[in-house]
Amino acid sequence: MPELRSDPISGRWVIIATERAARPHDFPAAPPEVNDEERCPFCVGRESQTPPEIFAIRDPGTAPNMPGWHVRVVSNKYPALRVEGTTAPSRVGIFTRTDGVGAHEVIIETTEHHTHLGLLPTPRVAAVIGAYLQRYRDLDGDERFQYALLFRNHGRTAGASLLHPHSQLIALPVIPKRAAEELESAERYFGRHAVCVFCRLIQQELESGERVIFENDRFVAIQPYAARFPFETWLLPKHHASSFGELGESDVMSFADALRTSLHALHACLNNPPYNYIVHTAPYTDHARHAYHWHLEIMPRLTQVAGFEWGSGFFINPVVPEDAARFLRQAAPSPGREALVSGGSEE
Amino acid sequence: MPELRSDPISGRWVIIATERAARPHDFPAAPPEVNDEERCPFCVGRESQTPPEIFAIRDPGTAPNMPGWHVRVVSNKYPALRVEGTTAPSRVGIFTRTDGVGAHEVIIETTEHHTHLGLLPTPRVAAVIGAYLQRYRDLDGDERFQYALLFRNHGRTAGASLLHPHSQLIALPVIPKRAAEELESAERYFGRHAVCVFCRLIQQELESGERVIFENDRFVAIQPYAARFPFETWLLPKHHASSFGELGESDVMSFADALRTSLHALHACLNNPPYNYIVHTAPYTDHARHAYHWHLEIMPRLTQVAGFEWGSGFFINPVVPEDAARFLRQAAPSPGREALVSGGSEE
Repeated sequence: MPELRSDPISGRWVIIATERAARPHDFPAAPPEVNDEERCPFCVGRESQTPPEIFAIRDPGTAPNMPGWHVRVVSNKYPALRVEGTTAPSRVGIFTRTDGVGAHEVIIETTEHHTHLGLLPTPRVAAVIGAYLQRYRDLDGDERFQYALLFRNHGRTAGASLLHPHSQLIALPVIPKRAAEELESAERYFGRHAVCVFCRLIQQELESGERVIFENDRFVAIQPYAARFPFETWLLPKHHASSFGELGESDVMSFADALRTSLHALHACLNNPPYNYIVHTAPYTDHARHAYHWHLEIMPRLTQVAGFEWGSGFFINPVVPEDAARFLRQAAPSPGREALVSGGSEE
Repeated sequence: MPELRSDPISGRWVIIATERAARPHDFPAAPPEVNDEERCPFCVGRESQTPPEIFAIRDPGTAPNMPGWHVRVVSNKYPALRVEGTTAPSRVGIFTRTDGVGAHEVIIETTEHHTHLGLLPTPRVAAVIGAYLQRYRDLDGDERFQYALLFRNHGRTAGASLLHPHSQLIALPVIPKRAAEELESAERYFGRHAVCVFCRLIQQELESGERVIFENDRFVAIQPYAARFPFETWLLPKHHASSFGELGESDVMSFADALRTSLHALHACLNNPPYNYIVHTAPYTDHARHAYHWHLEIMPRLTQVAGFEWGSGFFINPVVPEDAARFLRQAAPSPGREALVSGGSEE
């Protein structure tokens, strides 16, 4: 059984993969990215090579685990956590642990092996978001889970071991440190100002416009003021909502539009860079309805210079966020409509 | 002037390098590691290729910036921060910024181009620690600085752009997020239990022994219970001290011994892995004398799988810390004395 352990000083949780434990000679361990379409387990016709599907968007009349799907969700074949078990934490002196109970799912985003979310038409990105939502809400029903981490690794240096477009979802019996911190900070701000700190930030960014990449009726994409990474990009819903699970049917297309446009801009501007993105949302168990504001953070992995950042929480970013915003706005004007920010920028 | 910016939600500080700002075509940007001894600016005889030396351990009678040195400290030729300026923070709406004032120094650890701190004799490692201490204490005298980050990047994938053995020191007008968090957590623990959480942790680790790699009279090296990374290693002084600057003359050799042994074990066990290490110490401006406990954290960079960890603060470690401790104990028994932990382990 994998183990979840908490660091007594920082409070961060770590999955210790006790089952498929690596030994010294297993390193360096970066598995080669499977680029080979002939062997890809996520391609059509190889449905039997993955665990059985949990959810799929399919052509009418097609059977599960057979061709005919457009988006397909399966369990991770090498899950970091196990679904079976209970989550009672136990203590060993100052240390806290619990069994590594959780869900670890893979969202296969398209049948096309060689494409990218930023290159798909918006309705197909919307179908992927629909699958995210279905799984996010379904796992909310399991009372053992406190939080769901929805993320995407693109490119080998960003941790992707398979090229075929996919995202992942990990449902956890604990709250990740970063989520807990953001929640706490947002609640503190709300306590002082009676307004959501993210709403305040969006208002300020839209007024100045200098870090805005894109906006539509319901979403805005910005370079954060204190970006850790070159071309780091945040997507935020303009209307306050604390949980990703609250995303309504009518918002899905706007979110897909903002996500596709941001990824396309990064793709065009930086020649298909590796990146990670993560949905930041309120925990299942504490919606912090007024204080927190869900969003998505995209972190391009352009520099290896990020040496001591891991340990210090202190970052050096060689790209000025306002410059990055300008480059990204120029890289991907959405054709045929009001996509670029019209006012407030230096262009 | 570089800028220091603070994220309003997380409170993390970021250096935005506004001067040598990169553009999209500068990426991927990892500079090649200079392995070439013929062109190395840190080798003897090329002292003029670095900024003037700030401190050196030299043979008697030799002049600064000439051969004759053993350890040499210079300013970073491409500093992330500038020494000139004031540090008054200013606010733009919800954002906080300050000028990028700080010191950025390089400690050249040895005249030998092709070696490693884990392979040097202990007295020569002690000389490096001596240089750390001199610079750490000297910068404490500048009242603009709140914190000093002492770190070492080893290997290109850990961010080292020069092979020649060296460490870095960045003095900051702000407290890095991770340091602030640790401090706060340690003070909270002290408030509840009237004991330092690190002292408690050391006591528990020495009693169980299962994660201890090495101990001498004054230091202990362990694998942390909730290690983020495979073979992550912490070195802690056994006697309580909150600041690295308190390290006494008589402790330097013990610390050098523990550091050399730990690095040597990692080198032997994992075939010279890339790593970062960072000294975690109390801020210059808040010694938190009873609550905090300085230490050094070594993070081998063995996996690229660390995708979403950046954003979530949630880690998956494929190596069980107790196993890693066993491998490291076996890898580097210190010859000729009581180096291995005798009791409590599974061997």
